[in-house]
Amino acid sequence: MVKRVYAFGEGTKEMKALLGGKGANLSEMTNLGLRVPPGFTITTSTCNDFFQAKGEFPDGLWEEVLEHVKALEEKTGKILGDPEKPLLVSVRSGAPISMPGMMDTVLNLGLDDEVAASLVEQTGDERFVYDAYRRLITMFGDVVMYAEREKFDEVHEAEKEREGVKGDTELSVEGLKRTVAGQKKVFKKEVGREFPTDPYEQLKLAIAAVFNSWNIPRAVTYRRAEGIPDDMGTACNIQTMVFGNMGWNSGSGVMFTRDPADGEKGLFGELLFNAQGEDVVAGIRTPIKLADLHKEQPELYAELEDIAEKLETHYTDMQDLEFTIEKGVLYILQTRTGKRTARSAIKIAVDMANEGLIDRETALMRLTPGNVDQLLHPQFDPASKDAARSRGDLLTVGLNASPGAASGVAIFDADRAEERGKEGESVILVRPETTPDDVNGMIVSRGFLTQHGGGTSHAAVVARGWGKPCVAGAEEIRINLQDSSFTVKGRTFREGDWISVDGATGEVFAGVIETKVPNIEEELELQQALQWADQVRRLGVRTNADNPEDSRRARMFGAEGIGLCRTEHMFFDQEGEEISRRENIVTMILQSDAAAPVLRRIADLENRLEDSPGDESLLTELESLRKVADADPAVKKYREALDAILPFQRKDFEGIFEAMDGLPVIVRLIDPPMHEFLPPREELIEETTRLRCTGEDTEKLEEREAILRVVESMWETNPMLGLRGCRAGLMYPGLTEMQTRAIFEAACNMAKKGIDVQPEVMIPLTSHINELQAEREKLERVAKDVMAEKGVNLHYMFGTMIEIPRAALTADEVAKASDFFSFGTNDLTQMTFGISRDDAEGKFLLNFVDRGLLPANPFQQLDWDGVGQLMDICVKKGRETNPELEIGICGEHGGDPHSIEFCHIVGLDYVSCSPYRIPIARLAAAQSEIKHREA
Amino acid sequence: MVKRVYAFGEGTKEMKALLGGKGANLSEMTNLGLRVPPGFTITTSTCNDFFQAKGEFPDGLWEEVLEHVKALEEKTGKILGDPEKPLLVSVRSGAPISMPGMMDTVLNLGLDDEVAASLVEQTGDERFVYDAYRRLITMFGDVVMYAEREKFDEVHEAEKEREGVKGDTELSVEGLKRTVAGQKKVFKKEVGREFPTDPYEQLKLAIAAVFNSWNIPRAVTYRRAEGIPDDMGTACNIQTMVFGNMGWNSGSGVMFTRDPADGEKGLFGELLFNAQGEDVVAGIRTPIKLADLHKEQPELYAELEDIAEKLETHYTDMQDLEFTIEKGVLYILQTRTGKRTARSAIKIAVDMANEGLIDRETALMRLTPGNVDQLLHPQFDPASKDAARSRGDLLTVGLNASPGAASGVAIFDADRAEERGKEGESVILVRPETTPDDVNGMIVSRGFLTQHGGGTSHAAVVARGWGKPCVAGAEEIRINLQDSSFTVKGRTFREGDWISVDGATGEVFAGVIETKVPNIEEELELQQALQWADQVRRLGVRTNADNPEDSRRARMFGAEGIGLCRTEHMFFDQEGEEISRRENIVTMILQSDAAAPVLRRIADLENRLEDSPGDESLLTELESLRKVADADPAVKKYREALDAILPFQRKDFEGIFEAMDGLPVIVRLIDPPMHEFLPPREELIEETTRLRCTGEDTEKLEEREAILRVVESMWETNPMLGLRGCRAGLMYPGLTEMQTRAIFEAACNMAKKGIDVQPEVMIPLTSHINELQAEREKLERVAKDVMAEKGVNLHYMFGTMIEIPRAALTADEVAKASDFFSFGTNDLTQMTFGISRDDAEGKFLLNFVDRGLLPANPFQQLDWDGVGQLMDICVKKGRETNPELEIGICGEHGGDPHSIEFCHIVGLDYVSCSPYRIPIARLAAAQSEIKHREA
Repeated sequence: MVKRVYAFGEGTKEMKALLGGKGANLSEMTNLGLRVPPGFTITTSTCNDFFQAKGEFPDGLWEEVLEHVKALEEKTGKILGDPEKPLLVSVRSGAPISMPGMMDTVLNLGLDDEVAASLVEQTGDERFVYDAYRRLITMFGDVVMYAEREKFDEVHEAEKEREGVKGDTELSVEGLKRTVAGQKKVFKKEVGREFPTDPYEQLKLAIAAVFNSWNIPRAVTYRRAEGIPDDMGTACNIQTMVFGNMGWNSGSGVMFTRDPADGEKGLFGELLFNAQGEDVVAGIRTPIKLADLHKEQPELYAELEDIAEKLETHYTDMQDLEFTIEKGVLYILQTRTGKRTARSAIKIAVDMANEGLIDRETALMRLTPGNVDQLLHPQFDPASKDAARSRGDLLTVGLNASPGAASGVAIFDADRAEERGKEGESVILVRPETTPDDVNGMIVSRGFLTQHGGGTSHAAVVARGWGKPCVAGAEEIRINLQDSSFTVKGRTFREGDWISVDGATGEVFAGVIETKVPNIEEELELQQALQWADQVRRLGVRTNADNPEDSRRARMFGAEGIGLCRTEHMFFDQEGEEISRRENIVTMILQSDAAAPVLRRIADLENRLEDSPGDESLLTELESLRKVADADPAVKKYREALDAILPFQRKDFEGIFEAMDGLPVIVRLIDPPMHEFLPPREELIEETTRLRCTGEDTEKLEEREAILRVVESMWETNPMLGLRGCRAGLMYPGLTEMQTRAIFEAACNMAKKGIDVQPEVMIPLTSHINELQAEREKLERVAKDVMAEKGVNLHYMFGTMIEIPRAALTADEVAKASDFFSFGTNDLTQMTFGISRDDAEGKFLLNFVDRGLLPANPFQQLDWDGVGQLMDICVKKGRETNPELEIGICGEHGGDPHSIEFCHIVGLDYVSCSPYRIPIARLAAAQSEIKHREA
Repeated sequence: MVKRVYAFGEGTKEMKALLGGKGANLSEMTNLGLRVPPGFTITTSTCNDFFQAKGEFPDGLWEEVLEHVKALEEKTGKILGDPEKPLLVSVRSGAPISMPGMMDTVLNLGLDDEVAASLVEQTGDERFVYDAYRRLITMFGDVVMYAEREKFDEVHEAEKEREGVKGDTELSVEGLKRTVAGQKKVFKKEVGREFPTDPYEQLKLAIAAVFNSWNIPRAVTYRRAEGIPDDMGTACNIQTMVFGNMGWNSGSGVMFTRDPADGEKGLFGELLFNAQGEDVVAGIRTPIKLADLHKEQPELYAELEDIAEKLETHYTDMQDLEFTIEKGVLYILQTRTGKRTARSAIKIAVDMANEGLIDRETALMRLTPGNVDQLLHPQFDPASKDAARSRGDLLTVGLNASPGAASGVAIFDADRAEERGKEGESVILVRPETTPDDVNGMIVSRGFLTQHGGGTSHAAVVARGWGKPCVAGAEEIRINLQDSSFTVKGRTFREGDWISVDGATGEVFAGVIETKVPNIEEELELQQALQWADQVRRLGVRTNADNPEDSRRARMFGAEGIGLCRTEHMFFDQEGEEISRRENIVTMILQSDAAAPVLRRIADLENRLEDSPGDESLLTELESLRKVADADPAVKKYREALDAILPFQRKDFEGIFEAMDGLPVIVRLIDPPMHEFLPPREELIEETTRLRCTGEDTEKLEEREAILRVVESMWETNPMLGLRGCRAGLMYPGLTEMQTRAIFEAACNMAKKGIDVQPEVMIPLTSHINELQAEREKLERVAKDVMAEKGVNLHYMFGTMIEIPRAALTADEVAKASDFFSFGTNDLTQMTFGISRDDAEGKFLLNFVDRGLLPANPFQQLDWDGVGQLMDICVKKGRETNPELEIGICGEHGGDPHSIEFCHIVGLDYVSCSPYRIPIARLAAAQSEIKHREA
């Protein structure tokens, strides 16, 4: 015969599956010798048997319950149903995992008229007894018998109305007694039978109700959603009641073994004498802080301290306890791992490891990436935020695109933002979407708010890179750029109006909210934890950084190199430079239609001559083409434009190499489609139509029409799948060479200054080995030329981004021309899913995630099954033909812990992420190693 | 000692690798007893040894050559260098594979002044002898000694000028003699030594020259490009000269054993008496046709017939021979497999199989898909086309997007095309690009010409589907829609001007070109071959067809079902219908912003209630939401719009099911992005800007602005990766249900009429199993409802298109909810390569193919390594969890032989292609089976 009932003490904390979380801990504490009111637990497997028996008690259950009641009676000297020495019990559900919809507690089981009268005598507190009785009938009717709770409450309300009082506690004892009487009538009417005065019947019904609550729709739905098996079942706990309101040597309290707010060691909690648990919550009197108890009741404090240490030592974690003192005797009613703030979590874990309570790896596993993230970004003061909410100042909730919080004046234009930001104002840049053109204004802004775009939009990526808050895709706001305003929920905000954005939640508020700004260098426990993480992890952690400042910041956060330096931003104008970079790249693009074909043909002939050095006909053609090219004004302009940009790119690279002295730096060649450097098509259409219509400025019209023609000729329906990445390098002659020259000139110059430079040049968007090979040949040639010119010999690598499924699938080929791979999982996810990140989030992706059609947003969390499978194929095939291959990831996923875990599993060498994600990545990498380490 | 030299007869036709193609066949014919002028072949491996020995004759070679010369002298009774009985020989290169750049023939080796004088005596033909001598010196100087050919020719030209004649044959014998003398001087000056009169020295130098020609740059480049190994080497053939110009009982001729134009059996070729081979080509006299030889010289004819039969029986294929008659004796100089037209190829293969010369499978392997294609499409008469070319009427060459050829008047607007086409005019529709809106005009057009778009653009796909010629992406033409004209190379063509398009070559001509139109039903040999193919092939062949007419045509071509019926065209207006389909779908889209969210929520609640039938709170919410929806005018319009389209869709499906009686029909639910039904964004921007500027029509302005707002809100940067396919079904409530209802109502109605319907409904663009599952649930529900209503029980299947890499990678999951898969390789290629087919072809793709950066256009020829690898993964994983899974392909590749071969290899069940590709697919499927069949 299977054992169905365990007295507290018969089980252990490891038996959660059988006894539920609550029951297992009550047993554990009993065994620890803590004073727990005696009781017993009916197992979860009994719950299953109950359903097998179609809702009847399975054979032997009731008999076993009765035996345990008898044992309780013997232990307490009280008897169930005996008015003289009444034993009162509580009945609680308790599943292995806490879940919504499960049966509420029924307290005070065992009460009836007679017992109540006797209890009044013993406690001298009629209010307490009849209030308890009223609650029992209500709870029993509602929870156990499924009657409508409102009907019971109506009786209570009517009594209060009759006496003209509002609060429950103001009702007279007579009123309470009338309530009890009235509720019994309601019970009979609603349930169809008298309120059961037989405590055994009460008990039996309550136990059945606990089991039945396992299958109510809310619980079932929750289990389906969470993937919790239906046959897990719930346990049922029956426990002797103790009362903290039996005089001034009684009381109820809650206690944390360390401060849940800041993690400081020492008891933290509250105690209210002569009161029950619910009174503490209701706040009828001011409870005493446990810290103060030290002076007032040193013995009690010592006892609590003793319990706290016992439990912490035993559970090796901070505990959250409930206790009751009945007539000077301290009982522990519950213990569980205490919830805590991020700061507290980090301090507690590090302290406990330093105290020797846990080892360092356990400490690391206690931390969540969210803990670390919170300590790195400004946050709104919760009270101040609540106040704003209750003022009705919460305007909308957009996408939480980059964590942190900031208040500032709304500014709708990047140049204006730059202006006001430099005057020292706090600025929030508000745009329909941002583009690289807005970067000057973004630099000085405290945060960004965009109407469109998702978590991987330009604004979001830039914001995360700089650690600034960003709320993106706040589709409810309507921006009107004409008059610099936005409207939401009928309120209009103009330039200079204060708003606040919380990038961690996506909330946008009107007005100012108080902000707390952390400083990572002062977070000593965090620094300690991260050092431990560094000792454990196998994955390297690099950063995505495009300029010296970001590089330095990333180093401070612990970056071990640059995994992605994007060069496209370097084509935009930068302050204090006389020559316009942008103008030059635009010139290059505008001339390319005329200049590129002949230059491509020349390069092609040069290549073919390398294979067939003696070929007269190739030589002849080449010579004549060179003459044609040299005489062509378009070619001249094209070449001059490229030449003009080189020194600025070189300067940028020099700064980055200097900042990353001794560490590897991956520079990616220009990636986005060239038309991003030109004005948007629709803007040009509107402008030319207007100019044509008004006939005002024919000169300007001609100029704009000329640009529009170029834009139209470059127009792509799906630019994501278009002429970009290495394709641009292959179609715009000299572009790759110019960038490579800038990189190697910078590297050689810095090397001469004694800096340890480790350049790795990355070719983007490879889909076929031939493309890579062709680009790589150019790189090799230029690198050798420059090093010969400079008389410097550098160690360098050439590799490719893996962001196209085909590159991953044919990695064995691609690896033959690569020293390294870096997964561009943003694009790889787009193509593997066939989802455009720029468009999809607002249009259907988030809706699909909400509806469970997708398990998660694959742009935030790497899709292990699909994209991950490609990565796995790629790593295996790549290393097959090139065992030395260095493999990393530089997509947004490089800073996401769930994704980092996958990178660890498939054996990447490093992850690369934005500077502010680096501490998280270091932790996640260590956790992955610990979790997956072979025993 | 390895054997380096083989006398003709010592080798066989199988020894091509060692003796080269020419040498092997000369040996073979010698062995067959045919009269071949004796000679010998130096092996290809000797060529390698020659390079090993750094350009010296390897040990023993010269001795072996001398032995064989001696044997020749014995056999012929002539002696090399002997003026009395001079032996003259030719020296020819002959690699296993013919390739450009290899050494030209040197004839008449063995001539010098003395021999020449003696020969004049013997032949009595001074002109012949000195002309031969002149040629020997020129060829020897140019080909063997690498002197400049021009210098030799200059001497000849000067002699002709001196005599005031133009043609070579007009030059006097004296002139020829002076030429010989002059050329000898040139030889000395250019080469630095006297022309070698020692025939052995001539021979030695000529052999070395043959070997050296293996490594000239042109040959090396060609080998690199074609992947031919450098160590293949060339053989060298030395053969006794025979002369067809030794009187009227001598002659030279060429002969095909069957007619290379139409395949008819019987000798085909020409013979010229008293002439050498080059005279036949030069056309100095009219040669006699071999067919006529029958009457004139029956014995000679019989001898030729006998040789033809011998060679055909031996080589089991039609042969192309060269022969010479010297003083009544017939010599065969060369035989090789004869080139032939498509028609001839098919007839010869089928005839030979029927004659028992080859088996049927060999006959099938002799055919190329190109042969079949040519017989299915109209073609320009070659002479007429040449004439147009020489008139300068070739305007440009675009992409050869759909085969066939047509002349017609250029029309620039679909409605105008419809008008004039219905008046009986031949119309070529000329558009920047076509859209589904142009279909009415496309139906009546003979062919299409587009400025933009590639091989998978709308125009190209429609054209191939209908078997009409299309030239796409003719970027050189500039279309001006305002005045209905296009300009190219300075010529302007207006509406009504005649043009001609050749879709097989991409050529566009001015004016009319004579066209030949084939009729497949009259092509009996083709029909025969395809029946044989059907008996062999394992792959099924279905068609892509969207309407009853196409379905019927495809059946005629041999389709075994519909593999893809696209439903999106059914949303456009069709003639004779009172209700506008398009207006209704536009209404649905315009209302969806307001109507869709509540309807989605209702559907969601209904689903959740199926899981938790008793949930009160869900029920309550559902009821109230239903009331909200029913009262909402947007919802009303939305629903009415969908309802209005249903009967038309049903009608379309009924026609298709009827046409496909007894065969499976895969209907794909609507796939493209919804904004394709709305006016283009840029058009609206232009229009609203103009209206705003002129202030003319404020009412229209408001209406257009309203549409623009919707278009803007639906705008996607990359629509290919956007809200389309099953995503639309999941975001537009009721759309999938409406389509499913139309399909099943149609199927039930037809079944009741006794038609055998086999519907398979295909869900497009699945990326995650959950999406498929959600859509499938709707399908199942509606299908069951309709069948219950109609009282019909049908066999049906539900499946999905595999066009997103993730679906292929997770096929084991996806297969759980699929009865069939169909590869949409157009999209799958786009996403696997990260290349947008709409944009890339003109922008970089074709350029990359030209430059060898991509081995082929992956949208025409399936990329086995990348896309194919995904397909392979998908097939294996899919069948793992669902062994019954039916798997096919419906992308454009389904009609491409190279792609079909891959489909066969990975074990697909069928391919599906446009009707006109079906015969090709049948052949390709059979060839794949034969090629890959296990022995």
